[in-house]
Amino acid sequence: MEVKQYVSKTYDVIVVGAGHAGCEAALAAARMGNKTLLMTINLEMVAFMPCNPSIGGPAKGIVVREVDALGGEMGRNIDKTYVQMRMLNTGKGPAVRALRAQADKRAYSIEMKHTIEREPNLTLRQGIVDDLIVENNVVKGVITNTGARYGAKSVVLTTGTAARGKIIIGELMYSSGPNNSQPSMKLSGNLEKLGFELKRFKTGTPPRVDGNTIDYDQTEEQKGDAEPNHFSFESNDKDYLAVKDQLSCWLTYTNEVTHKMIRANLDRAPMFSGLIEGVGPRYCPSIEDKIVRFADKPRHQLFIEPEGRNTDEYYLQGLSTSMPEEIQQKMVHSIKGLENAEMMRPGYAIEYDIVSPYQLRATLETKLISGLYTAGQTNGTSGYEEAAGQGMLAGINAGCHALGKEEIVLKRSDAYIGVMVDDLVTKGTNEPYRLLTSRAEYRLILRHDNADLRLTELGHKLGLISDQRYEAFETKKAAIEAEKKRLGEFRIKPNDEVNTFLAVKGDAPLKDGVLANEFLRRPEVKYTDLLKFIPAPERPLDRRVIEQVEIQIKYDGYIKKAYQKVEKLKRMEAKKIPDRIDYDAIEGLATEAQQKLKKIQPATLAQASRISGVNPADLSILAIYIEQGKIAKV
Amino acid sequence: MEVKQYVSKTYDVIVVGAGHAGCEAALAAARMGNKTLLMTINLEMVAFMPCNPSIGGPAKGIVVREVDALGGEMGRNIDKTYVQMRMLNTGKGPAVRALRAQADKRAYSIEMKHTIEREPNLTLRQGIVDDLIVENNVVKGVITNTGARYGAKSVVLTTGTAARGKIIIGELMYSSGPNNSQPSMKLSGNLEKLGFELKRFKTGTPPRVDGNTIDYDQTEEQKGDAEPNHFSFESNDKDYLAVKDQLSCWLTYTNEVTHKMIRANLDRAPMFSGLIEGVGPRYCPSIEDKIVRFADKPRHQLFIEPEGRNTDEYYLQGLSTSMPEEIQQKMVHSIKGLENAEMMRPGYAIEYDIVSPYQLRATLETKLISGLYTAGQTNGTSGYEEAAGQGMLAGINAGCHALGKEEIVLKRSDAYIGVMVDDLVTKGTNEPYRLLTSRAEYRLILRHDNADLRLTELGHKLGLISDQRYEAFETKKAAIEAEKKRLGEFRIKPNDEVNTFLAVKGDAPLKDGVLANEFLRRPEVKYTDLLKFIPAPERPLDRRVIEQVEIQIKYDGYIKKAYQKVEKLKRMEAKKIPDRIDYDAIEGLATEAQQKLKKIQPATLAQASRISGVNPADLSILAIYIEQGKIAKV
Ligand SMILES: Cc1cc2nc3c(=O)[nH]c(=O)nc-3n(C[C@H](O)[C@H](O)[C@H](O)COP(=O)(O)OP(=O)(O)OC[C@H]3O[C@@H](n4cnc5c(N)ncnc54)[C@H](O)[C@@H]3O)c2cc1C
Ligand SMILES: Cc1cc2nc3c(=O)[nH]c(=O)nc-3n(C[C@H](O)[C@H](O)[C@H](O)COP(=O)(O)OP(=O)(O)OC[C@H]3O[C@@H](n4cnc5c(N)ncnc54)[C@H](O)[C@@H]3O)c2cc1C
Repeated sequence: MEVKQYVSKTYDVIVVGAGHAGCEAALAAARMGNKTLLMTINLEMVAFMPCNPSIGGPAKGIVVREVDALGGEMGRNIDKTYVQMRMLNTGKGPAVRALRAQADKRAYSIEMKHTIEREPNLTLRQGIVDDLIVENNVVKGVITNTGARYGAKSVVLTTGTAARGKIIIGELMYSSGPNNSQPSMKLSGNLEKLGFELKRFKTGTPPRVDGNTIDYDQTEEQKGDAEPNHFSFESNDKDYLAVKDQLSCWLTYTNEVTHKMIRANLDRAPMFSGLIEGVGPRYCPSIEDKIVRFADKPRHQLFIEPEGRNTDEYYLQGLSTSMPEEIQQKMVHSIKGLENAEMMRPGYAIEYDIVSPYQLRATLETKLISGLYTAGQTNGTSGYEEAAGQGMLAGINAGCHALGKEEIVLKRSDAYIGVMVDDLVTKGTNEPYRLLTSRAEYRLILRHDNADLRLTELGHKLGLISDQRYEAFETKKAAIEAEKKRLGEFRIKPNDEVNTFLAVKGDAPLKDGVLANEFLRRPEVKYTDLLKFIPAPERPLDRRVIEQVEIQIKYDGYIKKAYQKVEKLKRMEAKKIPDRIDYDAIEGLATEAQQKLKKIQPATLAQASRISGVNPADLSILAIYIEQGKIAKV
Repeated sequence: MEVKQYVSKTYDVIVVGAGHAGCEAALAAARMGNKTLLMTINLEMVAFMPCNPSIGGPAKGIVVREVDALGGEMGRNIDKTYVQMRMLNTGKGPAVRALRAQADKRAYSIEMKHTIEREPNLTLRQGIVDDLIVENNVVKGVITNTGARYGAKSVVLTTGTAARGKIIIGELMYSSGPNNSQPSMKLSGNLEKLGFELKRFKTGTPPRVDGNTIDYDQTEEQKGDAEPNHFSFESNDKDYLAVKDQLSCWLTYTNEVTHKMIRANLDRAPMFSGLIEGVGPRYCPSIEDKIVRFADKPRHQLFIEPEGRNTDEYYLQGLSTSMPEEIQQKMVHSIKGLENAEMMRPGYAIEYDIVSPYQLRATLETKLISGLYTAGQTNGTSGYEEAAGQGMLAGINAGCHALGKEEIVLKRSDAYIGVMVDDLVTKGTNEPYRLLTSRAEYRLILRHDNADLRLTELGHKLGLISDQRYEAFETKKAAIEAEKKRLGEFRIKPNDEVNTFLAVKGDAPLKDGVLANEFLRRPEVKYTDLLKFIPAPERPLDRRVIEQVEIQIKYDGYIKKAYQKVEKLKRMEAKKIPDRIDYDAIEGLATEAQQKLKKIQPATLAQASRISGVNPADLSILAIYIEQGKIAKV
C-alpha cells in the first residue's frame, strides 16, 4: 500500500542520523538557537559505538578537545562514562601527546541520548528519512518512511554505515545497519537522483569474547593513569576515577598459527573472494588484510578491551575480520590467553554508501544543493571522533545558514577538524579517511593541550560556550600570561644549589645568571624545578596553567616559526576564487588542472594549491586571471 | 553465495532467543548443571522490553513470584532496576493483591545480560538460528545463519515477535523484529516443514513522548509505595527506594475529540483496512479497537509512564495503536496534558508467527519432536511475565530431559504458570493469551504472598534454590507455624480494654474469652492489634511472617475448602491417558470429542475434562476404556 504523505512540523535545522556526527550537529544547531529536529532509525542506538570501545588517541583525541572547545558534547560525555583514561606518548613532544579513554558503550549512548532529550530547542525522534524536499537546488526539508514531510532551512545528513548497509561474514551477506539494525534503503537512491556521486566503502569490526573465558595471566595488563586527565575543559580533577576504579585492558599477540589459519582460508575471505565491493580503511585494516600486506610480520598486537562496566564482553582490538565465523573462532583460539575464549559476537564487515566529499564546500555544505550539509562516515571518513568533528562543523554551519549568519571555515592551521575537512573537500577520498598526526603540517600548533586556546573564543562567539565557562577560560589565559611574564622577571644565579641540581640532571652548570624562563628552556628542567630557585606564585597554579607555561616557553622558537608559515598561508587563503568560475575560459591552464579545478571548485588559491595535479604554473595563471577581474562564469 | 556449514560445539541445552522466556530458560537449564547455549539476534536486546515499562500487576505479578520461588531471575532483576513499586488492590482480598513495578528498561536489559554472562555453565552468543537438526523426530541441535551446527540434547525455542516479524504503521509495512531490529525470516518456514502448525498473531505498542513536553499539571500524579515490597524472596527491605527516589506515573484520559479523530480515520487503520492479518490481543486492545468495541465509552484511562531513570521518554499506557503517524500525532495532542507533547516514536503493530500450543505437552515439549520445547510469545501468549513463566518451565524440563531426569508439570492448583500452560496445551489459543486472575479456579490458593510456600521446595529439589536460601525459607515457614500455634495458646478475655477496642472498630463486644487465633478471624482485627492483648513473640517477626499468619488464619475456612477441591482434582489428574492412544478405536465417543481428543492428546483424564466439546459422557467412556486396559495405539 502506498504510504500517504502529510505535512508535519517545520524546523530551522533537521539532522538525519543520531550517530556521533548527528548528535554534535543537532546539539550545536539547537544551542545556537535553531529549532532543530534529530531523526534517527533507532532510539536505542543514539551515539552507538559499533566498533572499538574507546574515544581519543593520536590526532583523534585532539579532535575531541577541539569539539569541546567549540562547545560540543563528545568530551563531556566521555568524561562522564569512561572506564579507563590514559595519556599517550607522554615521553614524546607535546605535539603528539593524546588522551584516550576506554568507554562504557551503553552508558555513553544512554548519557548522550539523555543530554539530547533535555536540550530545549531540540526534538529527538525515531524514524527513517527516505527522501529530501528540494526546490531549485535549495533544500526545503525531508520526507520520512511514515510519510511525514518536515520543513527546514538547513538539513544535515549523517547517515553513517546504515546507508544501504550490508553485513558480510564469510559467505553470508545480508542487508543491515551496524549490529543487526535496520538499514536505510531509500535515501541513497534519491541522493543519486539529485545528482550526487556516491561511492561504496566498507569497514569491519572484530569478534567480541566473554571475559570470563579469558586467561588474563597469559596477557599483559594495561592499567589506566593515576594522574587525572579529562577531555572537557569543564570536567574537574576531583571527579577523576582512582586507578582501582578504572578497568584494565590486556595485551596479547597473534602468532604463526593465527596467520597460517588465515592464509589457508583466504579463498573464503570476502575481501579477497570478490564478495566485498566497497573500499576498506587502510589505517584500520582487517587482520586478513594485515596478513597479506605485511606477510613477513611474525605477529600483530591485540588489545583486549572491556565493552563497559556492566558487561563481560571484551573487544579484540586489532582482529577486525570478515572471515567465516568458523575461521574466526579458530583464529581467536590460536591466540595466547584466548585459547578457551567464547566468542559472543563474530566480527563482520559492513558495506555502505558515501557521498564523495569533493562535492562539498569547506563549510560541509554540498555544492549542489544549498542548505544541505553532510558529515561523518557519510563523507567517507571512519571513526567516531572524525564524525563528531565534522558533525560539529556541519551543525554550526547549518545553524548559521538557518539564522542567516555567516558560516565558518576551520583552516588547516586552526584545528585538526580543519585539516580533515580540507583534505576531504580538496582531495576527495578513495578509501575510508582517518585522521593521523602526519596529515597535519602544523602539528606543533594543533596540540592537544591548546585546543581550548585555539577555539574557545570562536565557540563563545557562536553562542556555544557559556559566559561562565568563557570567564574561566579567560582566567586561565590570564594566569598563563602572568606566569610567563613573572618568569621573565626573576633571575636565577649560578650558585651551588643550582649547579648541584644541574649536575644531578647531567646538565651543564650555569656560568652567568639567567632569567627563569630561559632556564626553563633547558630540556631537563621542569616548571616545578624552577620553584626551588625562585619564589612560588602568589596562589598555586592549576596544573593546566603550568602545562601551558612550560610548553609555550620550552617550544617558543618552534611555535613562532610555525606561526610564521601560517601567516604566509593566510595571505593565500585570503585570495578567494569567485563562485561558479568557468575554468574552460582560462587560457593556458593544463588540462589536468582544468579538470581537477572544475571538479573540486576550490574556494581559495590556497585550497587550489593543495589539489594534486594543479601545479605552480597553473596557480599563477589562475591568480593573474582572477586579479584582472574579468571573470567568465558558468 | 551459499553459506558453508561447519560443526561447532555441542551443548546439553540450546535456547533460541534471549527475550524474557529465553533468559529464564537458559539460566534455569544452566543452573541445573547443563552446558547451555543462549543464541539471540541482538546482544543489545537481551531481556528487551518492546512495550510497557513495567513488570507485575494482577496475575502477572504472581507469576513473577512463582518464577522467583523456582529460582528464576525476573524477580531479582526487577528488584535491582525498578523505578517505582506499588502493591495493587490492597483494599481487596489477598487473592487479587499483586505487586507491580515500573522498570528502568535499559537497566533491566543490561543487568539481565550481565547476570547471564556471569553464569558459569551458560554461553551467550549473538546469531540467528535458521533451522533445527532433527533425526527420527528427535531434536539434535540447531543451525545458524553463519553456518554453525550446534549439537544439543534439548532445544528451547523462544523467538517471540521476531518470527517473520512485520511492523505496521498506517499504510506502512516492513519486515522487522520489535523496535526496528532484524527479524528471524527462515526458522518459521523450517518449522512448518517439520510439520508444525503456525498461526499469525499481532500485537501493538503506543507512541512514546518526550517528558519535557508534557504538562503534568493537567494530569494526576501516581506515586510509588512508601512501604517496602519486593518481588524476590532474596531482596531486602533495607534496599527499598524511598518514595522521593521513585519516579511517578501520571494519569490522564482520552476524550471525545480523540475518539472522533480515530473514528474519522478508521479506513486508514490497518486493523480494519485489511492490512493486518494477525489476530490481536483481546486484553491489550489497541485504542482504535477499544473505540470500536466500546463505542459508548466517553473516555479511556491513559497512564503516562517513565521508560527509565536516564531518559525522558514516556510510554502512553492505553494508547496502543497502528494508526498512521499523522493521526497518532493528532490523537496525542487531543489529550489533556499532552497538547504539546512531542512524539519520539510512533506506536506500531507487529505481526509474527506462533506455534499453535495444542501441539505441546504440559512440559512444553512439542509432541512432534522429542527434546524440542517452545515458550513465551512463540506459544501464543503475550506479556513479559507469561513469557518468563513458560521460559522457566521449558528451561527446567529441557534441563531435566538433557540430564535424563523426570520432567515436571505444574498443575492448575500449583501455580498460575500451571493454569496458563494447561490452558494453552488443552485449549490452544486463537488470540494472544494473557493471564488474568479469572482464569484461575483456585485463586485463593495461588496467591501472591504464598508463591514461595508453594514452589520453593520444588525449586530447591531441582537445584535452582541455594541451600542458604532454602534454609531462610524453612526458617520463615517454621516461624509462621510457631506463631500460628502460639496464637492458639493464648486466650483473650472479654475485659474493658478489649471491648472498647472492638467498639471503636464498630465490632460486636466479646462475651466469652476466645483464643487469639479465633479473635484474629474477626474482619476488623489485625495481627498487630492482637499484641495489645497478648504478649509479643519472643523475637519480633518479619513482616512477611506476620502477613502469612494473618492470611492463613483469617481465610482458613476458604483455603481448606479450596484444597479439598484440589484433592478431588488430583485423583483425576492421577488417571493418566496412555501415549498414542487410538481414539478411533474407542466406541461410543461423540465425533467432536473424538476429534478434539485426537488433536490435543490430553495426558490425563483431568486434562481431557477441560477440553471444550468433551462431555461427561465421553469422559466416562474414556475412563472405562482405559481401566479395561486393552488399549489400541496409533
Ligand atoms: C562494523 C563497523 C566497524 C567499524 N570499525 C571502525 C574502526 O575500526 N575504526 C574506526 O575509526 N571506525 C570504525 N567504524 C566507524 C565508526 O563507527 C563510524 O565512523 C562512526 O560511528 C561514524 O559516525 P557517524 O555519525 O558518521 O555514523 P553512525 O555512527 O553510523 O551514525 C549514523 C546514524 O544515522 C542513522 N541513519 C542512517 N540513515 C538514516 C536515515 N535515512 N534516516 C534516519 N536515520 C538514519 C543511523 O541509524 C545511525 O544512528 C566502524 C563502524 C562499523 C559499523
Ligand atoms: C510492539 C510490541 C508490543 C507489545 N505489546 C504488548 C502489550 O501490550 N502487552 C503485553 O503483555 N505484551 C506485549 N508485547 C509482548 C511482549 O513484549 C512479549 O510478550 C514478551 O517480550 C515475550 O517474551 P518472549 O521471550 O517470548 O519474546 P521476545 O521478548 O520477543 O524475545 C524473543 C527473542 O528471540 C530472539 N530471536 C527470535 N528469533 C530468533 C532466531 N531465529 N535466532 C535467534 N534469536 C531469535 C529475538 O531477537 C528476541 O531476543 C509486545 C511486544 C511487541 C514487540
